[in-house]
Amino acid sequence: MNVALLGFGVVGRGVYDLTLDRSDINIKYVVCLEDVTLPGVTVTRDYQQILNDETVDTVVEAMGGLHPAWDFVKAAIEAGKNVVTSNKAMAATFYDELLPLVQGKKVLFRCTAAVGGGIGWLSELGRVRRCETVLSVGGIMNGTCNYILDNMTRQGLDYDVALKQAQSLGYAEANPSTDVDGIDTWHKIILSSNVAFGVSLDKQSVPVCGIRNIQAADVAEFTKRGYTCKLISTGKRTENGFSAYVQPTLCKAEELEAHIPMNFNLITFEGASAGRQSLYGQGAGRYPTAYNVVQDLCDLLAGNGFYAPCTGTVAAKNDGLLRFYVRGASDAWLQSVTAESWGSGVVTGPVAVDEIHAWLKNHPDCFMAAIR
Amino acid sequence: MNVALLGFGVVGRGVYDLTLDRSDINIKYVVCLEDVTLPGVTVTRDYQQILNDETVDTVVEAMGGLHPAWDFVKAAIEAGKNVVTSNKAMAATFYDELLPLVQGKKVLFRCTAAVGGGIGWLSELGRVRRCETVLSVGGIMNGTCNYILDNMTRQGLDYDVALKQAQSLGYAEANPSTDVDGIDTWHKIILSSNVAFGVSLDKQSVPVCGIRNIQAADVAEFTKRGYTCKLISTGKRTENGFSAYVQPTLCKAEELEAHIPMNFNLITFEGASAGRQSLYGQGAGRYPTAYNVVQDLCDLLAGNGFYAPCTGTVAAKNDGLLRFYVRGASDAWLQSVTAESWGSGVVTGPVAVDEIHAWLKNHPDCFMAAIR
Repeated sequence: MNVALLGFGVVGRGVYDLTLDRSDINIKYVVCLEDVTLPGVTVTRDYQQILNDETVDTVVEAMGGLHPAWDFVKAAIEAGKNVVTSNKAMAATFYDELLPLVQGKKVLFRCTAAVGGGIGWLSELGRVRRCETVLSVGGIMNGTCNYILDNMTRQGLDYDVALKQAQSLGYAEANPSTDVDGIDTWHKIILSSNVAFGVSLDKQSVPVCGIRNIQAADVAEFTKRGYTCKLISTGKRTENGFSAYVQPTLCKAEELEAHIPMNFNLITFEGASAGRQSLYGQGAGRYPTAYNVVQDLCDLLAGNGFYAPCTGTVAAKNDGLLRFYVRGASDAWLQSVTAESWGSGVVTGPVAVDEIHAWLKNHPDCFMAAIR
Repeated sequence: MNVALLGFGVVGRGVYDLTLDRSDINIKYVVCLEDVTLPGVTVTRDYQQILNDETVDTVVEAMGGLHPAWDFVKAAIEAGKNVVTSNKAMAATFYDELLPLVQGKKVLFRCTAAVGGGIGWLSELGRVRRCETVLSVGGIMNGTCNYILDNMTRQGLDYDVALKQAQSLGYAEANPSTDVDGIDTWHKIILSSNVAFGVSLDKQSVPVCGIRNIQAADVAEFTKRGYTCKLISTGKRTENGFSAYVQPTLCKAEELEAHIPMNFNLITFEGASAGRQSLYGQGAGRYPTAYNVVQDLCDLLAGNGFYAPCTGTVAAKNDGLLRFYVRGASDAWLQSVTAESWGSGVVTGPVAVDEIHAWLKNHPDCFMAAIR
């Protein structure tokens, strides 16, 4: 297998390292802007060179971002090359274009490292789907948020202090928005739901709320009442079709989610026969993520593409009712749904998920968490 | 695929139910002693009939026990038929005979349901091994013991009461020895280590201690000190080769194992690149277990056999040092290694695992738990 590796950052470098000693996977090109020298590898900025080289059968995309990643992946598939990517934003955003293209061109495509880093989540989900109706997917999919929330809970830290700690350890970016605003988790639950249910979720129908506005006083109130706050994603079959959303959620001590430490992930599916199952591990990091890219390359060698027939685009309907903790806002609607006071916040009676997220758009500074 | 199903108990009946609507898996025979009538299926006690029928390509063994299960499986492989089994005792006991036979006859063999019931553990471990050095495997592999220990911990129950509760709910057998004496877990860690490390562990070199002698007072002492007792299996690479054992173990609140509820399992591997990863789910039950048998049949249809080249039989050396809680014995050796008192028991200084298990053989009534 002759591979062109796009991007030589955290993941790309890891893939290079992990395949160095393999005789079955040969990194022939690295496409990157950095000035690196790698023995036996052509390092280039000219992507056309890869498309023109018929000996390159596989492209590994590890650049991140939507463009030019998607343009390069699209061109590779159109040129008849197999593709492996760790790019959740790209895979989730272009899912309904990507799958027909892969099928039409009869190439192989895999993106296991896009959700859960080193955890074999999407790979297992593809296996599950072969002979099982998946009822729900979701869980803790972002290590940065879990690290911040875990340290706020255990050490009583303020959000800003916990964020700075995460940044100093390399668990959070200088601009943490993608993680703390839930965008990363949003891409991951869309992609996971698509694979689990064989659809392409309309992204605008999947509401997301992150952890940016949480304060130490909120966490203290939750702890006092026996709850731990986690950023939880949900995708599930309902009577009306599908429901999917991302939001801070208060977990009881009996729930495994409450005990996930540091920057770890816990991703769960429920199958009709298999019951509830969860996968736990490090959802990011150079070698865990690169490991799953190499796993995907091994699957390509075995002829195993991504198993995810897609019946089309559908909108999520989030009319399920939950109670919510809300702090930092007060208006007629909130008062009309308020059931009790918790510290400086309130707790609502049962409210539809779509309804509170719509309300939240006009109250961007308040903090909200579902109670389950 | 024409299948002969051996056994029509909990798992066999589940496999029948889950394959009823599939066009690619046809249950042609059921071999059992019960008097059942199944439309379109030949129910027989005559195993020779299956061996003689060349249209039967696959045998599913769901009888349990060593004999005649192993004799039937061996005869099936020798007749050129593929085999799927959920039988951990058989797979672990005859591993070094089974693997060469499968390879010699060029048939496909899988046994995912043998460890973890519905959890895709052995299947995932086979995937991991393709491109990863597995450093360790283990965890909570027996739902019966976890149920008993969990209820003793949460409700302060005595062992006998918790066992009876488990029996009344069908989580424990009338004769619970296989579960509570750790034999089930012992078979599972041997099989998991064999797959993870590509060896066949000498079973006599893997010491096992169960939970039969634990008392409410032990659990109260552990709780007071912040520990939760679980039956934990361990298999790992060491400087000297391999180490493997099964023993009650005290887990701290920061460890995920401490929070595994009811009859759930948590099975963990550590990979050189992938880091620590765990799989969580129901380790038993009709449909979860049957689900993994059907998964294995799907893998057979795809031509994927069990990936576990084996370099030969090796003895585990358990010279790693741990501290142990011991209650119910007193002799010169124990006094010589005692470091402190805990309630009515003592805690040793660092002692080799093999050493304390050898001592334990002469003290069958005492309770022992490793501290980690």
